[in-house]
Parts: sequence; C-alpha cells; structure tokens
Amino acid sequence: MAKIGFIGLGNMGAPMARNLIKAGHSVSVFDLNKQVVNELADEGAHAGTTADEVTHGAQFVISMLPAAKHVKSLYLADDGLIHHLASDTVVIDCSTIDAASATEVGQALADKGIAFVDAPVSGGVAGASAGTLTFIVGGAKTHFNAVQPVLEDMGKNIFHAGDIGAGQVAKICNNMLLSILMAGTSEALQMGINHGLDPKVLSDIMVNSSGRNWTLELYNPCPGVLENAPSSNNYQPGFMVDLMAKDLGLALEAAQNSGSATPLGALSKNLYTLLQNQGAGAQDFSAIFNLFEKK
Amino acid sequence: MAKIGFIGLGNMGAPMARNLIKAGHSVSVFDLNKQVVNELADEGAHAGTTADEVTHGAQFVISMLPAAKHVKSLYLADDGLIHHLASDTVVIDCSTIDAASATEVGQALADKGIAFVDAPVSGGVAGASAGTLTFIVGGAKTHFNAVQPVLEDMGKNIFHAGDIGAGQVAKICNNMLLSILMAGTSEALQMGINHGLDPKVLSDIMVNSSGRNWTLELYNPCPGVLENAPSSNNYQPGFMVDLMAKDLGLALEAAQNSGSATPLGALSKNLYTLLQNQGAGAQDFSAIFNLFEKK
Amino acid sequence: MAKIGFIGLGNMGAPMARNLIKAGHSVSVFDLNKQVVNELADEGAHAGTTADEVTHGAQFVISMLPAAKHVKSLYLADDGLIHHLASDTVVIDCSTIDAASATEVGQALADKGIAFVDAPVSGGVAGASAGTLTFIVGGAKTHFNAVQPVLEDMGKNIFHAGDIGAGQVAKICNNMLLSILMAGTSEALQMGINHGLDPKVLSDIMVNSSGRNWTLELYNPCPGVLENAPSSNNYQPGFMVDLMAKDLGLALEAAQNSGSATPLGALSKNLYTLLQNQGAGAQDFSAIFNLFEKK
Amino acid sequence: MAKIGFIGLGNMGAPMARNLIKAGHSVSVFDLNKQVVNELADEGAHAGTTADEVTHGAQFVISMLPAAKHVKSLYLADDGLIHHLASDTVVIDCSTIDAASATEVGQALADKGIAFVDAPVSGGVAGASAGTLTFIVGGAKTHFNAVQPVLEDMGKNIFHAGDIGAGQVAKICNNMLLSILMAGTSEALQMGINHGLDPKVLSDIMVNSSGRNWTLELYNPCPGVLENAPSSNNYQPGFMVDLMAKDLGLALEAAQNSGSATPLGALSKNLYTLLQNQGAGAQDFSAIFNLFEKK
Repeated sequence: MAKIGFIGLGNMGAPMARNLIKAGHSVSVFDLNKQVVNELADEGAHAGTTADEVTHGAQFVISMLPAAKHVKSLYLADDGLIHHLASDTVVIDCSTIDAASATEVGQALADKGIAFVDAPVSGGVAGASAGTLTFIVGGAKTHFNAVQPVLEDMGKNIFHAGDIGAGQVAKICNNMLLSILMAGTSEALQMGINHGLDPKVLSDIMVNSSGRNWTLELYNPCPGVLENAPSSNNYQPGFMVDLMAKDLGLALEAAQNSGSATPLGALSKNLYTLLQNQGAGAQDFSAIFNLFEKK
Repeated sequence: MAKIGFIGLGNMGAPMARNLIKAGHSVSVFDLNKQVVNELADEGAHAGTTADEVTHGAQFVISMLPAAKHVKSLYLADDGLIHHLASDTVVIDCSTIDAASATEVGQALADKGIAFVDAPVSGGVAGASAGTLTFIVGGAKTHFNAVQPVLEDMGKNIFHAGDIGAGQVAKICNNMLLSILMAGTSEALQMGINHGLDPKVLSDIMVNSSGRNWTLELYNPCPGVLENAPSSNNYQPGFMVDLMAKDLGLALEAAQNSGSATPLGALSKNLYTLLQNQGAGAQDFSAIFNLFEKK
Repeated sequence: MAKIGFIGLGNMGAPMARNLIKAGHSVSVFDLNKQVVNELADEGAHAGTTADEVTHGAQFVISMLPAAKHVKSLYLADDGLIHHLASDTVVIDCSTIDAASATEVGQALADKGIAFVDAPVSGGVAGASAGTLTFIVGGAKTHFNAVQPVLEDMGKNIFHAGDIGAGQVAKICNNMLLSILMAGTSEALQMGINHGLDPKVLSDIMVNSSGRNWTLELYNPCPGVLENAPSSNNYQPGFMVDLMAKDLGLALEAAQNSGSATPLGALSKNLYTLLQNQGAGAQDFSAIFNLFEKK
Repeated sequence: MAKIGFIGLGNMGAPMARNLIKAGHSVSVFDLNKQVVNELADEGAHAGTTADEVTHGAQFVISMLPAAKHVKSLYLADDGLIHHLASDTVVIDCSTIDAASATEVGQALADKGIAFVDAPVSGGVAGASAGTLTFIVGGAKTHFNAVQPVLEDMGKNIFHAGDIGAGQVAKICNNMLLSILMAGTSEALQMGINHGLDPKVLSDIMVNSSGRNWTLELYNPCPGVLENAPSSNNYQPGFMVDLMAKDLGLALEAAQNSGSATPLGALSKNLYTLLQNQGAGAQDFSAIFNLFEKK
C-alpha cells in the first residue's frame, strides 16, 4: 500500500480519495474547504493544512482541480510543490485542463527529475463514487506502469495515451467526438420523428446499422427510448451541458494550437452554446435533442 | 417458393436476383441491358423483354433502379405497371430514392389495391453478392410480413421502419448519421495525430469510451489502424464518396420537406462536396479523413 | 404601349399589374381569385376567365405564381399555354422558382419558337406597390432588350444575368449571400454586446470598415440601431423568415444540382430552420439576431 | 508636437514610427532588431537601447508587438514599464491581441494611474506606410481625445469603440465578420459560375442588390473581376490567410470567454484552417475562393 498526498476534494476528488482510503492506502488530504477535509479525516485520511504538508514524503501526489490556473499555481508558483517534492515522487494530475498547460507543468517537473502523468477522468460523480472511472493517462511508459495500480483503486479502465499531455489530448478528442455523436444522433432522430417514424424503431434500426454509436446504444437523447437514460428523466444530469461546453472549449483551443481543422466539432460547440444561452446549461448534455425540436 | 418479377439488373440488382434464383424462386428478369438479362437466363432466370411481361402473374415484383424518375416511370407512366399489375401482387421497390417519391408511388399503387413496400438496402455490392444486405422496409405490417421471407433470401437484417416511405426515411437518417460519424471521427483522429498521438492508440481509447461508433470500430478512416478497412487499401471502395454525397442530397431534401434542422448533416454534406470537387468522388467515403490532413 | 396578358394576382402580382395599367399598357388579367380580377378590372384591366383568354394576341405574357409546379402547369400542361401562344409572344415569368424548372419551361417554349425570360424580383410587396422592384433577368440579350421597357414600368433596377435560368440562379446566389450577411452580422453584433460594446458604436465602426455590408448599412438586425429597420419595429416584416427559408431551399437545391459546396449557405439555412422551429417564421428575417441572444 | 516612445519596429511598427517622425514629433524608438533602430535614427528618431530608456519622459508610449505575451511582458513583468512610467504618460498599445489580455494590462496600468488605450489597427503594411490606417480604440473618452491627434498622424479613420479592451473586441468582431463576407461571397460566386454565369455580371448584380458587401465591392475574390484586387494578381497579399486565421483564433477565444454563439465565424475559421493545411497560408485571404472551386 502506498503513501499518497491528495489535493482537491470537490465533487469528484472527495469520492476518489475515499476509494483510495478504502483500498488501504495511507492518504493525506488537503482542500481549502476544511469541512470536507474533516469528513475524510473521519473516514481514515490524514487531514493536512497545506499542500506542502500532505505531499511531504508521499510516493504519489494526486491533484484534482477545477482549472489550469489552479494546477499551475499548485505546482509552479513561487512557493509551489515543484520546490518541495522529493525527486522520487510521482505526480498524477487528474484535472481536466488544456493540453498545453498540462505539458508545461509536466515538463517543468520532469526537468527537476519529478515524474508526472496527466490522467484526466471520465465517468462523472457516479463513476468516482463507484470506483469505475476511466483514466486516460499521458506520460512515460514506466510512469504509467507505476501509477496504474493506484488508478485501478479508483477506476475500471486505465488507458495509456502517450507522452506527457497525451492524456488531456485523448480525452478532449473523445469528448469532442462524443458531442458530435450526440448532436448528430439528435438531429437524425428528429428528422425521422418529423416524418412520422417511431424514435424507438428508428433507434433500433440505426443501432443495428452503420449509424451505431455510443449515444444511440447507451444514452439515447430522445425521451422514452431508453428508460434509464437522462432523457427519460427530464434530462437530469449525468453530464451537464455546461461541462460539455467547457470540454469543447478545451478541444477548440487544442485545435487552434495544433492547426487542426475541426468543422463538426466547432459547429457542435456552437450548438451547445446556443443551448446554454437558452438557459439549459444545467441539463444533461443529451438535451441538445430539444434544440432540433419543432415548437 | 414464389413467382417473382425482377426489374433492374445493375451492380446491385443482378446479384440480388441471382440469390433469389439460388434460393429456388421462379424469377423473371428484365433490364434494358440485354447482356445481363441473358447472363441471368443462363443461371436459371426467365428472360423477359418488357417490364410488363416479367411481372405478369408474379406474386412479388421487385425493382432496383437508379433514381426516382425511373421508379415513377416504371410504375406510374401512361403505360406503367400500375395499369397492368394484378391486385394481389406485392411490389417491393429496393431503389434508394427520396421519401416523397416513394410515398407517391406507393400511395398510387395502394389506391389501386396493390400492396407496396419501399425497401432500400445497405451493404453494397459485396453484401448483395453474399446475400447479407440490410433491408429497411416501409409499408403495412402485413405487407412487411409477406415480403420478409423473400428479402431474407437476399439479406441478413430485415427491419420494419413504419408505413410506406418510412424505409427511405430511416435509411437516409442512418446514412446522414453515418456521414457525421465518419467525418467527426476523422477530425478527432487528425487532431490527435497533430498532437503526436498514435492513431491506433487513440482509436483504441475512443472505441472503449463514449466516442465509440461504427466507423471507429469497423471502418477506421485512418490508414493502418484496421487492416481490412478501405483506408488501409488506398481508399478503394467500399462505399464511394459520390454515393454518400447522393444519399446526403436525399437526406437534405427530406430535411427541407419536413422542416427539420440538420446542421451537422448539412455541414457533412458540404465537406463531402469539397472532397468530390478535389477529384476524390470515386474513393471510399472514409477518404474524408484526407480532407483534414496537413499537406 | 403594349398588349400584356398577366397571370397571377397575389400580393406581388396585383400591384405589379396595377403599375402596368397606370403606365398605359393594355393589360388583361387572370387569377383563380375572381375578386382581385374584378378589382383590377375596376382600375382599367381587361378581366379574363382563363389564362388562354388573357394571353390571346398579347405581345407580352407575364406570370407571377407561387411555385414551380404552377409555372410548369400553366405553360407545359396538356392544355398549357405552350399549345396556344403565338410565336411572336414574349413570355416573362416573374415567379421565384428553382433554376432547373425555369430552364425546363423556357427551353420547351424556345423549342416552339416562343421567347422566354425568367425574371424573378426582389423588393417585396412595398417595392411592387411603389414600382421600385429589382428584376434579375435570364434569357437571350435580344429578349432582355425587348422586356426591359415593360419591366421598367414595374421596377427600378433591371439586370441581365445571362441565358434562360440565369435570373433564378443570380437571385438565389444573392439571397443565399444575403442570409449569410444577416446571420454573420447578427453574431458579430451579439459578440460585441456580450463584451459590453454599444451596438450602435460597433455597427458604426464596422460599416466604415471591412465588415461593411448591406444588412449593417440598411437593415441592421439589432433593435434601436436603425430607426426604420424591422428590428426596431418588433421584427415586423419586411421579408419573412419563412420566405428566406424557402429561398435558401431553392439555393441548396441549386447547389446540389451543380455540385457546388456552400457550407456557409447550408449552415445559414439550418439556423433559419431553427428559428422557424422556434415559431418565428412570420417575423422579419433579421430576427435571426434573437437566435444568438443570451436568454 | 509630442514626445513619444515607440516600441516594436516590425513590418507595421517601423512605417508607423516613420510617419510620426515626419509629422514632427520627437520620437524615441526601441526594438530588439538594432538595424531597424539605426535606420529610423537616420530618419530622425532617437535610438534607444531599452524600452525603459525610450519611454522616459514620454507623453505617449506606443507599442506594436506580435502577441499578448510580449505586451504583458513589456508592461507587467518584474522590470516592466508599469514600474517606471510617470503617471501622466498615456500608453497606446497598437498590437492585435486578445481582449482579455488587453484588459488585464490596461487595468493594471490604470490601477497605477497610468492612462491606457488599446488601439489595434487595420489596413496592413500598405496602410501603415501611407498613413491611412484605421485605429479602433478602447479606453476612457478623455484618453481617446488625448490620443486621437497622434493617431491621426498614422491613420485616417480613428474610432472610439468603448472602454479598455473594446478596441480589441471591435476589431475582431469586424474581422470575424469580414471572413464570413469573404467566404460567403466566394461560395455564392462559385455557385453562379458552376451554373454558367459570368462572375463579373453576377458580382455586378449582387453589388447592386442586398448581397452588397465590402469584399464584393472592393476585394472581389474571383480573378479578373476587379483588376487591382489580390485575386487578379495571383492572390499576392494583401492580408494573408495566416493572419486571418490568427485573428479568427482571437475571435473564437473572445466568443468562448463571453459565451457567445458564433456558428458562422467558427465555420469560417475552420475553412481557413483547411486552406492553411493545403499550403495556402501565405496567400491573400481572398484565396478562400479556391477552396470552393471544382478541380
């Protein structure tokens, strides 16, 4: 069992840390929110009062923060962890941030001899609680091998995408594609409905044909087709429109930085922005189905 | 075994008729191309010299024609089959045409008491030869039940989409969605490649995540990822860019007629047109991957 | 002064015919709506009871009909005018229809030696009443010269676009571009507003810079910028969303028929369809501005 | 006449500084490139060796730098000008950078009591040399009044867009709209050409109709229509594709930051990226016309 410093105990971080505790690791936790620190202490964590404290002597440092500026600040600020971590520490940043920032942080740590992987997750709060998250990891193969057992205590699928930054890139490629699948499936279903077709029948035909995709199979955006999908539950998230729009923002930044043409991703991003501007930001991202509806 | 009149022996129609002969049906065939009529006669068909002749006394009439104008002319012209068919004939039109024309023909026949189903196919020439086509059928449930055994001699999956015209609608909904999956998967893979990711690794991650779709699994557009995909064989079709563009034309016509918003389908159509205008019309439709490449 | 047969006395046709009467021509009118025929008779027209009757002996036949099927039927049906018109008649079809249909009708008449020009208009009901319409004419130069004086009695700008059908093509090229200008101007203004800029100031800057375009100058979509624009009058049309959507349908059909890539036109079409589906079809087409608004 | 410190003597900055010298101002110049500093010294400038030196005692500080990081570094770095400038200095940043960075710099200076305006330009190298640039200025009205006479020695149109940052916002709104006009005009012209219309005739019709826009009037993308346009000179820039793509990147960043839906701008950006990826980055931005051509 490992000695782990865990920073960032939000909706995702807290249940992730909890699973590490349950797995028997020695986990020191820190967050600006003292209440959640105390809760986790009650469950067996060591409560820390600074990031520096909880990472002292840790084999693994795990961070789960809202945005790139927090990650940069944690590691690279004048009093950042880069100045304190032992060179045999392995840093695992699970935040979803832009690839350029992940690479900047990882490279700076690497230059000091500190191992770094970016390991953004998918699976949401439910997956974090159930320990069934997907981790998409960027970093050296040896570092991937080192972190894999730890990640397996929080998730089910652990992928190695490539070098530092590749975890973030692969995640946003996937999520950009997901948004295209969801919007495309929605407009195809609506066109069928507008011609009088039954969306269950049409979904069944397409899921057994070349239109098959993850959204049609497991997350059908049309209410009533799949009983357990958010669409059949008033579009309760699930994965919020606002979060999809955030990920699409990261995707388009990555496209811009790499000179990649992503016309469908850009259009999908804008359809999600239209949806946000209609006040649907807190609904499940399958609510894009409603955008195409005839009122 | 049934008595069948078969009209239209092109790249698709000829192997379809062949499979009906092999299955033991009594098949009378007609096409303007006498050579292919003679070939099928050598294989056991009755060679006809007019459409009227081959459909005389047939229980099923099957037509497989290039465009709506041919279908309308065959059935509805002054000397069309509508004036000759017995009222217990069941007409199966396998042509891919616009839903409005299919409905017009089907309704006119229905008004005369002649059963009609539209039954467009997917699966291409290879599927037609192997007898593994997918049929998407529109028409009354009793007529669907009547034609199903015959279609099973030419195909593997037989779907009932709804009333007359619904077969055409469901097919173009599916193919419009397919074009979006293919273009979206291509731009996601190219963005990953532009960031230095290995397309095999990225494909493997996405196929096991929420980006999963038919193209990624079975028809990867990036050369070298799937050995048997057209992309690994110089984009030899498969399903040609020109044919996808034709189907997208039908899809947008259906969107127009029904007041459906299909922004991703319309964009995808235009990306395929750009590809055609670069001279790639005869390549496999996965060649859209090249449109996003950095030259 | 000329002898003119005028067929189609709708919102546009009636005031156009009225201007011909005022200019002193001898005008025979026909419409299925007898009331409007009688009204025009009171103003000096000869009231006809059939299309054949009012075109008998006419030097010019002018038609202003809602859709291609009406135009085809009027001229090409079994009892159509093609069988009755004298060979020195000049036919002027002012309907807005697809270029392929215009060409089909024009070519059929030409084959009989009857001169034909397609002459779709812009300027709306207001322009028709004021006699300030724009006519975009397709047909032989000599025929253009022949019809120009007549058109000048109903309009202000008379353009010669090219051969038969070119009038329709040029009109939809223009209107497709207009929809792009309107939607693009709307999103640029909304982005400025979202950053706290004054739309009047931003409009003034762009109209004096490289963003200048007809909508910004004369038809600003943001309420309050131009006092007389529909946007400042609750988006009372003007030119309705539904009519713009219809013209965009014709444009995309023309793109499809000619293998033209029109990605912005197709996107603009779909944005207008979204607007229609929100119930705004009867508003002025500048109401696309509202689609981009943060609710 | 004013005492001016000028930093950044690239393709744009050098001719701008030259015009200030000609106008009789006392201009101190600095650039990392010593050769251009010496050239301007020969023409009457005071040659400086640091940014600090040339801005010492200046009434106006003008900067013209390639990107936000240079501007931030010049003003806000540990040894940045913010620590040295007298509180009666007026800073004019003419760089084209993202609005957020402009606001950050301007606000930081304002907090120290130093006046700041962002004043991005359009008009290119030719306009900089001729002194006919357009300046779009963000900042307090009194500061705008203060800088206007100085800007008039380098430009012809000086606009006041609003508060700090508004200059950058207005410029990218304009340039995003410009890209839409250019791409939209190109696809409309190509669709006309594909139907056999003469692009000169079609341009003439649209420029006199509701399709009128700056590109059609002054910068027609079709070779041969306007003799002096870049399109008639092998698409020699003018304004390069790469620069338009850069501005569109800034525009989409601004859209993202403000939650603005800009579907046409995003599509236009991606069409420009496709063009770059075909190797046309150094051509004039009107070369987007070629993307729509049938090869």
